Amino acid sequence: MSASTFQPVNPDFEQRVRDSYDRQAFMEFLGAALTTVEPGFCVIELPVRDELTQQHGFVHGGVLASLADSVAGYAAFSLMPAEAAPLTVEYKLNILRPGGGQRVRATGEVIKPGRTLTVVRAEVFNIVDEAQTQCVTSIQTLMTMHGWEDAKRA
Amino acid sequence: MSASTFQPVNPDFEQRVRDSYDRQAFMEFLGAALTTVEPGFCVIELPVRDELTQQHGFVHGGVLASLADSVAGYAAFSLMPAEAAPLTVEYKLNILRPGGGQRVRATGEVIKPGRTLTVVRAEVFNIVDEAQTQCVTSIQTLMTMHGWEDAKRA
Amino acid sequence: MSASTFQPVNPDFEQRVRDSYDRQAFMEFLGAALTTVEPGFCVIELPVRDELTQQHGFVHGGVLASLADSVAGYAAFSLMPAEAAPLTVEYKLNILRPGGGQRVRATGEVIKPGRTLTVVRAEVFNIVDEAQTQCVTSIQTLMTMHGWEDAKRA
Amino acid sequence: MSASTFQPVNPDFEQRVRDSYDRQAFMEFLGAALTTVEPGFCVIELPVRDELTQQHGFVHGGVLASLADSVAGYAAFSLMPAEAAPLTVEYKLNILRPGGGQRVRATGEVIKPGRTLTVVRAEVFNIVDEAQTQCVTSIQTLMTMHGWEDAKRA
Repeated sequence: MSASTFQPVNPDFEQRVRDSYDRQAFMEFLGAALTTVEPGFCVIELPVRDELTQQHGFVHGGVLASLADSVAGYAAFSLMPAEAAPLTVEYKLNILRPGGGQRVRATGEVIKPGRTLTVVRAEVFNIVDEAQTQCVTSIQTLMTMHGWEDAKRA
Repeated sequence: MSASTFQPVNPDFEQRVRDSYDRQAFMEFLGAALTTVEPGFCVIELPVRDELTQQHGFVHGGVLASLADSVAGYAAFSLMPAEAAPLTVEYKLNILRPGGGQRVRATGEVIKPGRTLTVVRAEVFNIVDEAQTQCVTSIQTLMTMHGWEDAKRA
Repeated sequence: MSASTFQPVNPDFEQRVRDSYDRQAFMEFLGAALTTVEPGFCVIELPVRDELTQQHGFVHGGVLASLADSVAGYAAFSLMPAEAAPLTVEYKLNILRPGGGQRVRATGEVIKPGRTLTVVRAEVFNIVDEAQTQCVTSIQTLMTMHGWEDAKRA
Repeated sequence: MSASTFQPVNPDFEQRVRDSYDRQAFMEFLGAALTTVEPGFCVIELPVRDELTQQHGFVHGGVLASLADSVAGYAAFSLMPAEAAPLTVEYKLNILRPGGGQRVRATGEVIKPGRTLTVVRAEVFNIVDEAQTQCVTSIQTLMTMHGWEDAKRA
């Protein structure tokens, strides 16, 4: 489901989200791609390979968490004003079944935007051919850092 | 704090945890090392480098989650019988401050072992020289898969 | 949304859920009523009154959590076999806005049933006349206690 | 453990916390008492009675959550400036064992204070005579509402 009812306050939201994503070195390191950017809704996809697995050969839970973290952050960021940056406050995720398949797809959808805090639901799916099976459900809280440039700070 | 009051049911717990960790391809990909294995308590350390960062230059939240996930899993696994494997059910983490420093250190400590479910507290710290500052607190639930070999299944 | 695709293994699930609910003294103490019982989906409603509030006059977060806890438990219980009882493992809830209105309505919907563990999404809404506004989103993990009678144990 | 290292910014913090607690009608309805107020650390106790139980005769998980919610809120509030009120953002709790005993005791301890957000660990214990056994561990996030009076708003 796309949260298409949200109105972005920054008309340039898509370019801004994509530019920021391209600065997330860790997403590139994982091999993940940001495929969809809508107001309050984003999708990230990642081809599965051996380097991403845990001891049973499943996709490591931390990889699933990493995708959920980024996709939720960008869903929230898509609704933020131009002079602001997102910061993750906390999240919780349930692993409904082991991660696997040919690739994994993470979706983030804002369920409550706010001036200071935004709440996002993230879900991750195992993809085999065109069939998807959900492996993670997550809730994430993000803070809007007003006056922060979304750039290197450390 | 070390959960040194726990009695491992498998006297060979340390070797078993270390062998399993060595099969987690994703931990090697991150560059993380399992430094401490005690009954119900483990430590993982990871040198910080650019590939692990998000757009502000901080360590990506997913990296912190990955360390918390693994270290909690091995703290739980250290108390499991020989014929069993750990499976992560869920976790929640709060990012108390951005991840950074020269390296990050994750500790996992069992707070409630059980036949089916084990609850673990994981914490992550930013390390600069010898000083550590906490950046993550987490609670994780794991399931003991009795009768599972802790080996490739996928 | 009703999780109407689930097949209950116990054809007598509705009566069993209602009987169990009637033994939850705390729900009666709060004044809450179980209004809907479908396979994998339940609804509880509670008229708001002063006794249920916190210091700002909003419905206390613990009241919202209590409804989410019960409604999720019964959504899970509706799918359990006859010789089993539900036990709450953990939950996380986000308070999206303060609780209030004339009454609050909690819905629980199973998102992943399992032999040992069931994951449920619970939501709570403030009701004014016939309009509802969401105040809580929650994820809950429950364990099926096979061989337990769902009756007094303490 | 008492978080005695925190310095309250409001010297009148104890009276302010106690006055606010006394306006929580729901805590009085439950029969709970605020026993300890220190900077960043509070304790609430509640005698167990039948009205507070679920169908197995254990203390209802929502009662445990209610105590955790209030005690964490007041631990955070004790460190807030005079012109501010606390608002619960989210929490997660694990039920380590069923709630019961003669009474239950909830402790809240700030683990990270902040200008906007405060993170608190809450724990609940079953008390029998003078022995206590932990039944809940929880992490809670609260927001400081600067400029809010901590009084009736609804």
